[in-house]
Amino acid sequence: MSEEKLEQAVGILKELGIDAWLLLGRETAELCDPSLRLLLETDVTWPSAFILTARGERIAIVGRYDVENVRAAGGWPEVIGYDQSLRPPLRDVLARLNPAQLAINYSTGDPAADGLTHGLWLWLRDALAGTPFTKRLVSGESVVAALRGRKTASEVGAIRRAIATTETILRAIGGYLQAGRSGLQVREFAHREIARRGLTTAWRAAMCPIVTIGPDAPIGHVPAGPRAIRRGELVHVDFGVRQDGFCSDLQRTWYLRRPGERKAPDEVRRAFEAVLAALRAGAEALRPGVVGWQVDAAARQAITRAGYPEYQHALGHHLGHSTHDGATLLGPRWERYGRTPYGLVEAGNVFTLELGVQVAGYGFIGLEEDVLVTATGCEYLSTPQTEIWYA
Amino acid sequence: MSEEKLEQAVGILKELGIDAWLLLGRETAELCDPSLRLLLETDVTWPSAFILTARGERIAIVGRYDVENVRAAGGWPEVIGYDQSLRPPLRDVLARLNPAQLAINYSTGDPAADGLTHGLWLWLRDALAGTPFTKRLVSGESVVAALRGRKTASEVGAIRRAIATTETILRAIGGYLQAGRSGLQVREFAHREIARRGLTTAWRAAMCPIVTIGPDAPIGHVPAGPRAIRRGELVHVDFGVRQDGFCSDLQRTWYLRRPGERKAPDEVRRAFEAVLAALRAGAEALRPGVVGWQVDAAARQAITRAGYPEYQHALGHHLGHSTHDGATLLGPRWERYGRTPYGLVEAGNVFTLELGVQVAGYGFIGLEEDVLVTATGCEYLSTPQTEIWYA
Repeated sequence: MSEEKLEQAVGILKELGIDAWLLLGRETAELCDPSLRLLLETDVTWPSAFILTARGERIAIVGRYDVENVRAAGGWPEVIGYDQSLRPPLRDVLARLNPAQLAINYSTGDPAADGLTHGLWLWLRDALAGTPFTKRLVSGESVVAALRGRKTASEVGAIRRAIATTETILRAIGGYLQAGRSGLQVREFAHREIARRGLTTAWRAAMCPIVTIGPDAPIGHVPAGPRAIRRGELVHVDFGVRQDGFCSDLQRTWYLRRPGERKAPDEVRRAFEAVLAALRAGAEALRPGVVGWQVDAAARQAITRAGYPEYQHALGHHLGHSTHDGATLLGPRWERYGRTPYGLVEAGNVFTLELGVQVAGYGFIGLEEDVLVTATGCEYLSTPQTEIWYA
Repeated sequence: MSEEKLEQAVGILKELGIDAWLLLGRETAELCDPSLRLLLETDVTWPSAFILTARGERIAIVGRYDVENVRAAGGWPEVIGYDQSLRPPLRDVLARLNPAQLAINYSTGDPAADGLTHGLWLWLRDALAGTPFTKRLVSGESVVAALRGRKTASEVGAIRRAIATTETILRAIGGYLQAGRSGLQVREFAHREIARRGLTTAWRAAMCPIVTIGPDAPIGHVPAGPRAIRRGELVHVDFGVRQDGFCSDLQRTWYLRRPGERKAPDEVRRAFEAVLAALRAGAEALRPGVVGWQVDAAARQAITRAGYPEYQHALGHHLGHSTHDGATLLGPRWERYGRTPYGLVEAGNVFTLELGVQVAGYGFIGLEEDVLVTATGCEYLSTPQTEIWYA
């Protein structure tokens, strides 16, 4: 998969008019620039430099003992080994390439583009002292945003597989839900399903799945608790797995019928329809060229016009290697989101679409789907929940 | 386990005379300061600050939606939530604490102490502008080296469990080894053993285990290959698992007897004895107060005096959350190791001890054990291999 991303990165450098991109790493098994993870399918131990250019050069400079390892991983046709210090070969390579701009990965606004540590930045400044390149350093933010945001076919394939697994486990969770079982038990059940497939949760296991039970549960990033499910209540699950390095992120809602009850009460079904319609309004607004906040606004308007309070978060975020995988947010123009709601939606982006409402006396109804932005609109990667599920 | 590390960190700040330590993070599931991983058993999404003081204060400042999550994770009695910006509450807390030194995690020399990204460093400099604290920032290197290097009882317990699992899998690998099987098959076998326990490899799976077969295999960080084992050859395996967040790292060596052969040839057994004796010489030199290179020198001298070439790497490295878990290296004073061989060995350190020799015509003999530094010497955490194993 790194081969696809390397080719894509070269194209992005050309498109953005940035001559070269420099990524630094050491002991990457412990801490690794997220962008390097996309471009190198192994780890390096000693201080290492990876240089991509708009002309298509791909040059790795690594410690002697990492040379075979990086060669075997592939994608970097020129691998230069060093014994003593990374500095001389790095200076040589830059002198040879002579880039007018040299992008490095720091960003105050986008964590994914902020993979260079401060110590390595200090080292770089020192290593390049006396060269013209110290004045040519620029932030690689725009490169990283495009590279992470625009999924390749293999990346979309991996996300589809993670989603398919998640949907299978969610169906199993539906079979497990019953009165008397607690959120903690549901979480344990989900963890067993994940473990026996050799997978991990998409985010921190203690919070994945989030299980919201009944009318009094706190909403948000809250771990599952000991409170048992009762009949006549809603159960909401926010869940994803990480498979082949890619994540899913889905929310589903069940209602536990009381004895004799055939359907969920009217207000529950009405709220479900409103959530579903608002989510669809967001999906309909999602296409290349729109700005993040416009997609959020479509869904936000739909839910408030239906008479429900607006959700206190963004409608959607990028999805891929992590559950927050890119710069553009499908979110409102609130100060806490900074510039992220102003980013452009691009073909190949994968986003979540998620929102919910609280139904007094019953609990929380939340839905979340994963969608791929196509040339003209968006395609659901998940099979959407279109009616309330009964457990 | 973070409670133990938090208490330990406060003690280290007191011991080093550093008033306060500031750790920053955001989207920590994607990229997290390795030190924060020791002190916080969850992830945070928005920009967050964690402040420890030598007086024992522990203050977390996190985004509103992370407050419950950080409270539930425990260890941080004061959790301050914010809606708009981390800057005002951070400035308030620092003004209240008024530390004379404020350690932050950057280091050119120690990757584990270099967890602050350059973007967050820029943000911090800006956030503290106009306060006296910009002049009071110091590197947290010494804090991190002590905190990671000195293992708590729980940490040693977790390492012991990872080692026990690894030894079980290594025994199974011994049963699997036979003429005709390739390094790739051995690696696949090991991966199945790990997967069915719900664990992961201690380092990158493609390189874990490393399987070195016969006399012509390259040595070092080399992935397993298609070459099949033949009778009359040595098979060397370098392997570890990650269990409950902690790693093991062991090397074992087998000899495949030819038909009619009862023992390995003399030169193989002689070489094994020399490796074993050199490793023991290293273990005997390992105790609190010695300097890293002295331990390496004891083993290096033993192997060269026995007439074998010296190994081209360090005798040992820290072991814990990662396979390179601390600042001091039990290595020679070679330039490429920088200052790391000059670090002091401390009680509570866990190190690997590893070395090997090539036996012409047969292959590589390598041993690696994991040991805990005690008050007076060291204790083997692994059950040492004391004779050549036959498969």
